Amino acid sequence: MKLAIDAMGGDFAPQNIVAGAVEALRDNSHIDHLYLVGNQARVEAELHKLRVSDNRIEIVHASEVIEMNDPPVQAVRRKKDSSMNRAIDLVKRGDADAIVSAGNTGALLTASQVKLRTLDGVDRAGLAVLLPAPQNVFVLMDAGANLEPAPSSLVQYAIMGSMFSKQILGYERPRVAVLSIGTEDIKGNELTLEAHRLLKQTNLNFVGNIDGHDLFSNHADVIVTDAFVGNAVLKACESTARLVACWLKDEIAKNPLRMLGGLLASGAFRSLKRKADPDEYGGAVLLGINGICIKAHGASSPKAVKNAIRVATEFVESGFNEHMVEEIRKFHDKVQQNSFAQSQVEAPS
Amino acid sequence: MKLAIDAMGGDFAPQNIVAGAVEALRDNSHIDHLYLVGNQARVEAELHKLRVSDNRIEIVHASEVIEMNDPPVQAVRRKKDSSMNRAIDLVKRGDADAIVSAGNTGALLTASQVKLRTLDGVDRAGLAVLLPAPQNVFVLMDAGANLEPAPSSLVQYAIMGSMFSKQILGYERPRVAVLSIGTEDIKGNELTLEAHRLLKQTNLNFVGNIDGHDLFSNHADVIVTDAFVGNAVLKACESTARLVACWLKDEIAKNPLRMLGGLLASGAFRSLKRKADPDEYGGAVLLGINGICIKAHGASSPKAVKNAIRVATEFVESGFNEHMVEEIRKFHDKVQQNSFAQSQVEAPS
Repeated sequence: MKLAIDAMGGDFAPQNIVAGAVEALRDNSHIDHLYLVGNQARVEAELHKLRVSDNRIEIVHASEVIEMNDPPVQAVRRKKDSSMNRAIDLVKRGDADAIVSAGNTGALLTASQVKLRTLDGVDRAGLAVLLPAPQNVFVLMDAGANLEPAPSSLVQYAIMGSMFSKQILGYERPRVAVLSIGTEDIKGNELTLEAHRLLKQTNLNFVGNIDGHDLFSNHADVIVTDAFVGNAVLKACESTARLVACWLKDEIAKNPLRMLGGLLASGAFRSLKRKADPDEYGGAVLLGINGICIKAHGASSPKAVKNAIRVATEFVESGFNEHMVEEIRKFHDKVQQNSFAQSQVEAPS
Repeated sequence: MKLAIDAMGGDFAPQNIVAGAVEALRDNSHIDHLYLVGNQARVEAELHKLRVSDNRIEIVHASEVIEMNDPPVQAVRRKKDSSMNRAIDLVKRGDADAIVSAGNTGALLTASQVKLRTLDGVDRAGLAVLLPAPQNVFVLMDAGANLEPAPSSLVQYAIMGSMFSKQILGYERPRVAVLSIGTEDIKGNELTLEAHRLLKQTNLNFVGNIDGHDLFSNHADVIVTDAFVGNAVLKACESTARLVACWLKDEIAKNPLRMLGGLLASGAFRSLKRKADPDEYGGAVLLGINGICIKAHGASSPKAVKNAIRVATEFVESGFNEHMVEEIRKFHDKVQQNSFAQSQVEAPS
């Protein structure tokens, strides 16, 4: 398989990106070819620092960089020779199976959707993220791609998220829920109420609404929502975790006894940090487009980049998109049959 | 001042409610009269247990109770003689200045809005909650009252939230932000983009969009959003805090050294718990209705009830609603002037 890496995207690019890519190559013999897309001299310098010479690596020079705070749409349009655009072009031309980037999220979502287009039968792509809970790892989708989706898009997210959960995480029959403001069927806004109604008619393991209180309570393996809510909730979770950590640190620093206690329990804090570490989870995946697109977070360490590349290889190896097109086709067939049956009932001859 | 307390609402009613009300009476000589609305025999029994006889207390018998899981609208309509309905009726008739309830949130929001109606000039009521951050306490609004507000409602929330922040929390010039998916002006959905545009034209201290990442970073004192997002974000924050606490506990229990450390640092954990304790913050306030309505959380301790009653007295004493009507009137005048000025520009004679 062939992968395209946006070597210049992210807060610590190209250093961490190149280092992570090199680690991924070491771990994974299934990668036949790895494009490092970016400033040739700088990428070469990083490879030189790491004393790497691997003939699977090919540097593709790109003269521009989309910065983290560039306005997405303009950046994609104007910086045609940016590492991100060029890396996606490789996927578009079929030269690469997947793109991995730690760069500007908005630009990556825009460029991927514009250049790669959605898969057959998929209305809108959605960004899927993995969140860890004590008893399961669940998919939250959409975390940022489409702000005003139709209810049917939420159903498609549910199908895509279920496939993610099955094929990549190995859950046999993932439980799907709609994020709402209460667990009862009647709770929600127009979007979620209609999505709820549609999801009941699918073959998915739909368990109904989930309430924000139960996010981490192992009630669902796939949680669907619109990008606005998904993004706000995801970031609120991250903020809260940071807040708790910050407060705890302050409290422990308040007297020597507590500081000693904190020192003795430091292994617990380290484990906790690891559990909540986004670097472990290999980034977010833009599902529903012609190609595999993995977004590693902006501050990715080499380990995070390596994990994002591992996720990319898993998606490619599992033939994820081919299966997804098939699943979406089945869903459309079923909807059509249902509406045909419905019309027969409504208009008996 | 006269207060109506829903003595039967909440997971630990009437016990915690009566106990909290009695504590509030002890602390606060401004309360002239306190109605305990609920099952007469059960409320009397609680007062008897506490050996309280205070001639400011009046029990108002109500034969029904709206349970925590009753469907709100039906419960309000059918259980006419419920403690919650009766307590709100006291406010409606002018016999009480405020209602405090720890009961079914949906029912309380429904009954208060239906019976008390919105204040002059206010389109929609909104539920305001206080959230603690290291450097400030901020108002999040709406946390659950109206799921599909118009952009102008978000502006009214901003006015109401600012008054909350000023009059009750004592912030001089509270910073107002719209919760969005990025800090740039162009980020958001239709609702937030239009609300943003309108807020720029007000006299409020509007600081633009806030991102979920910066919720607790002291960027804003009043954060406005629709009820769906507000509710989801609020609950996600609570879930995350619980998740972190649960993980930390597990990790500390993993070996004796960590357990000793945890024991030595236990003061820090207790302080942290106190900081994040919703009981300290006196509940949520439904702003924009004819009357003061305080929602204490369902699992309220006596302390939480006492604090909720304290907040009610602060709202009554500050003449909150009278000031709010004035502020909202000024806002409407300004909008009218602006559109008049605009029409003069557009159609010069």
